[in-house]
Amino acid sequence: MLSLVYRLLVVPMSNTLTLDTPLDMHLHFREGDLARVVVPLSAKYFGGGIVMPNLVPPVDTEERLHQYRREIDALVEGTGFTPLYTLFLRPYTESELKKLRPFITACKLYPAGVTTNSESGVTDLSKLFPTIALLEEMGIPLLVHGETHGFVLDREKEFLPIYSQLATTFPRLTIVMEHITTAAAVDLLDRFDNLFATITVHHLLTSLDDILGGLLNPHLFCKPIPKRPIDRQALIAVATAGHPKVCFGSDSAPHPRDKKECCGCAAGVFTAPIALQLLATVFSESGRLDSLQTFVSDNARRIYPITIDRKVIVLENQPMVIPDTYGPVVPMWSGKTIPWRISEVNGL
Amino acid sequence: MLSLVYRLLVVPMSNTLTLDTPLDMHLHFREGDLARVVVPLSAKYFGGGIVMPNLVPPVDTEERLHQYRREIDALVEGTGFTPLYTLFLRPYTESELKKLRPFITACKLYPAGVTTNSESGVTDLSKLFPTIALLEEMGIPLLVHGETHGFVLDREKEFLPIYSQLATTFPRLTIVMEHITTAAAVDLLDRFDNLFATITVHHLLTSLDDILGGLLNPHLFCKPIPKRPIDRQALIAVATAGHPKVCFGSDSAPHPRDKKECCGCAAGVFTAPIALQLLATVFSESGRLDSLQTFVSDNARRIYPITIDRKVIVLENQPMVIPDTYGPVVPMWSGKTIPWRISEVNGL
Repeated sequence: MLSLVYRLLVVPMSNTLTLDTPLDMHLHFREGDLARVVVPLSAKYFGGGIVMPNLVPPVDTEERLHQYRREIDALVEGTGFTPLYTLFLRPYTESELKKLRPFITACKLYPAGVTTNSESGVTDLSKLFPTIALLEEMGIPLLVHGETHGFVLDREKEFLPIYSQLATTFPRLTIVMEHITTAAAVDLLDRFDNLFATITVHHLLTSLDDILGGLLNPHLFCKPIPKRPIDRQALIAVATAGHPKVCFGSDSAPHPRDKKECCGCAAGVFTAPIALQLLATVFSESGRLDSLQTFVSDNARRIYPITIDRKVIVLENQPMVIPDTYGPVVPMWSGKTIPWRISEVNGL
Repeated sequence: MLSLVYRLLVVPMSNTLTLDTPLDMHLHFREGDLARVVVPLSAKYFGGGIVMPNLVPPVDTEERLHQYRREIDALVEGTGFTPLYTLFLRPYTESELKKLRPFITACKLYPAGVTTNSESGVTDLSKLFPTIALLEEMGIPLLVHGETHGFVLDREKEFLPIYSQLATTFPRLTIVMEHITTAAAVDLLDRFDNLFATITVHHLLTSLDDILGGLLNPHLFCKPIPKRPIDRQALIAVATAGHPKVCFGSDSAPHPRDKKECCGCAAGVFTAPIALQLLATVFSESGRLDSLQTFVSDNARRIYPITIDRKVIVLENQPMVIPDTYGPVVPMWSGKTIPWRISEVNGL
């Protein structure tokens, strides 16, 4: 019955689109001043989302988890946004995990040094197998930043055998390939029942050409780096098809402008406050607006699985100009006009 | 006899290397203030070099050529540097070319819009065939920026059939593939007797990984974009082997710092004042210091062909720290220590 209500709600009515409880399954909320800027921007339009644990120090102890929960919970209070917390994967004991289980939705695996604040990540995966076995047993999904240390364009492809190994070794473990960027990763998705993926909106909208095919655009520079147009097409196809194993995860990663327009610019694209509007643009251009509810909410609720308070967002096919900045952060496509905007937010 | 003298001069003596009349066959001297900064830096250590014509407006008329010659000639006066001028390729008449012939060394073909100030370049190559036939007849080399408008990593590869077409259609024309970046371009070199290439020092030293494999480095951002490590290896192999068909051309492209560390950063790496020191580093690491004279001077004198006043440069295997800036321009690897420096310059 509930699913019928959802379906009625998401049918595009003339020039509007209603989304039931959109979820962002890959968020970087940071801490302190930056968190105060960016958390409310996600909380405004999303019903909930996965909060990544790659802080300095990482979220990998009970104390750190609760301290971070207190900080973020205070920032989302009254917004109707449910933060879903994660642990930075290291070897954990069973009793540690049991104690933390009620407070987390997933664990996140970072190979050491491949992205922002991942220096304390994993160097030898086999050492983590006992902990991963515990995750499988306890029904905790494993989220994976799947890149090797190879040549920048090959890092995801080179990691795919590790996904296969994990999926085979832990057949009851829910494994999420985070922010996939290649046609090869899309292909892998259907080879293992327990393998899922998140896709960002910037990887649906850009290829390497957009970063450096013309002038260099540091605000589109991110990891994993966007690949070839053919890879982007594969991502669009699987997302807009309503494929049951892919979820939206923005990987929205705020850096202050002076860390982007400089020498040694940090990786990350900030999309949180415009993600739904951009997604509506992509899905509408593909003629598949009807699949956006599946991609941005239904799949995630079934896969992880999670229950979230409802929040209904209405978009309309009317132009919006993307702001130049949000606090110190320059968003993707700042100043550009896009064809969808948010017209209504309520906690229906 | 002269060639024997050269050979004796270039034999590395303990920790020094003597180069006879190093030439930079691909230079961007710009105009005005920027020219006053960068021209003396090339003129100091090089005996001469090809001055590219992609200014705004381009160097493609008698008046513009002579005006630019006057400006650059004044800046190199007394340095022992011979500027070799070029014309921006457009349809020229025979009488135009005959009039300009004494003042130019080559013509440069830019497909429209592929690099800095190439907006007025070529859109339909066949329209230029009559002019290219004149170049062939008059013994004027054709220098080519060989990139299509395709995906950034494929642009050079997609252009290779056009090189083949030119080399076949104009068998007596000297064709230089400028700043090649791929193993595929290296392979093409040996398929046509009249096909040659320049290689930059930054393409010998970097791959795409250096631009965006870690933090984003705008000072290494250039066109054509450096490709895969395997492409870089092919460039190093052909340059250090003393292959008779490749010459050094720095493509040293100065942009003020505020055009590099920004949103919409311009393409170009500035290497002119450190090019020889960096080349010595590459050739020495490959154990082929003995080939540097061939790459940086002898091949160019034979291929174009040109006669240049002698200038002898002595390098020594002693560390140098690359300056942070030269005027408003940040050089490649600013602040880094490299193992070779220039110890002597004379007009011997």
